[in-house]
Amino acid sequence: MRSIGALVFPGFELLDLFGPMEMFGLLDSEFSLSLVSETGGAVASGQGPSAFADRTLDEGIEYDILFVPGGRGTRREIGNARLLDWIAQSSARAEYTLSVCTGSALLAKAGVLDGRSATTNKAAFGWVAQQGPGVNWVREARWVEDGRFITSSGVSAGMDMALGAIALMHGVETAEKVAGWGEYFWNKDRSHYPFAKARGLV
Amino acid sequence: MRSIGALVFPGFELLDLFGPMEMFGLLDSEFSLSLVSETGGAVASGQGPSAFADRTLDEGIEYDILFVPGGRGTRREIGNARLLDWIAQSSARAEYTLSVCTGSALLAKAGVLDGRSATTNKAAFGWVAQQGPGVNWVREARWVEDGRFITSSGVSAGMDMALGAIALMHGVETAEKVAGWGEYFWNKDRSHYPFAKARGLV
Repeated sequence: MRSIGALVFPGFELLDLFGPMEMFGLLDSEFSLSLVSETGGAVASGQGPSAFADRTLDEGIEYDILFVPGGRGTRREIGNARLLDWIAQSSARAEYTLSVCTGSALLAKAGVLDGRSATTNKAAFGWVAQQGPGVNWVREARWVEDGRFITSSGVSAGMDMALGAIALMHGVETAEKVAGWGEYFWNKDRSHYPFAKARGLV
Repeated sequence: MRSIGALVFPGFELLDLFGPMEMFGLLDSEFSLSLVSETGGAVASGQGPSAFADRTLDEGIEYDILFVPGGRGTRREIGNARLLDWIAQSSARAEYTLSVCTGSALLAKAGVLDGRSATTNKAAFGWVAQQGPGVNWVREARWVEDGRFITSSGVSAGMDMALGAIALMHGVETAEKVAGWGEYFWNKDRSHYPFAKARGLV
């Protein structure tokens, strides 16, 4: 059983967070999920609806998996030293660190992606890349696995990445079973991503 | 601008709710989103993480679109007269009524689907169909549109249905644009659904 600490902040993207949480949550024999925010309680997404964080940064809980979503709120949080410190500490302690969309901007700004390969949302690629000059940013990828760091493209790609992470930890057959439970067509090829071309990145 | 009132109850399915909310939320010039629960506040999903409902049933707000997710909590809520009454009243006032997965069991039990065609999660098909003997339950469909009622299959199919609803209200080009913003491959064919065959329903 692995614990997942999913960071939430004002302006997080709904599907970045809850798409992967659905996939991990379907395999509840293997994963337990917590939402972590600066102060706990209701946290409004960029789309309006709020998540409720049951954990706070200063509790200092060690999670086996650190999960960081993106969203418009990342533009503000790259200047939040307390949040970036928590990301750096939590990532150092975690077995895996995962991000979706512009969540990788926060990982990069926290310094944990230096020397690693990573990806992000194709529409925000330039801005995210600026947050981590020492990162090898991959332009065409649905998601990128580099050791214990798994970073994905925008929004919906997070679900494919989550299933990829489940495959890495529990085998591809388990990941396919989870996708079936969610009546989801898993886009399994992490290298191929037509949206990169649509955005003029390749 | 249309208001969406999305019902949440303990044990709702995360992606049933937040997949469609992401799609509607990406088009924030046209939709405003509210989460509605019996008493407001934190409501735990079947996967663990909680949503925060900013609205309650007894406020009696009229929503242009009533949205009902599924999840294991529906097994309890089909016996919740107060919730079913609110669904019947809200649906009567709404321009559209939408459901994902076993959310259609609640609509059926509330009586609003009688004489209509509808669908649901393929794994729970038999149980859902029992909640509405007067409903024409469609076995193989990703989602079903019958006038102002739009019901979808399990979990991930809700995102396809939400894009279908956006196409109905704002045209297919707008729906395709929204899918692109979410880097989502829209499964546009609402009649075709391989999971129905996988579950032995057709």
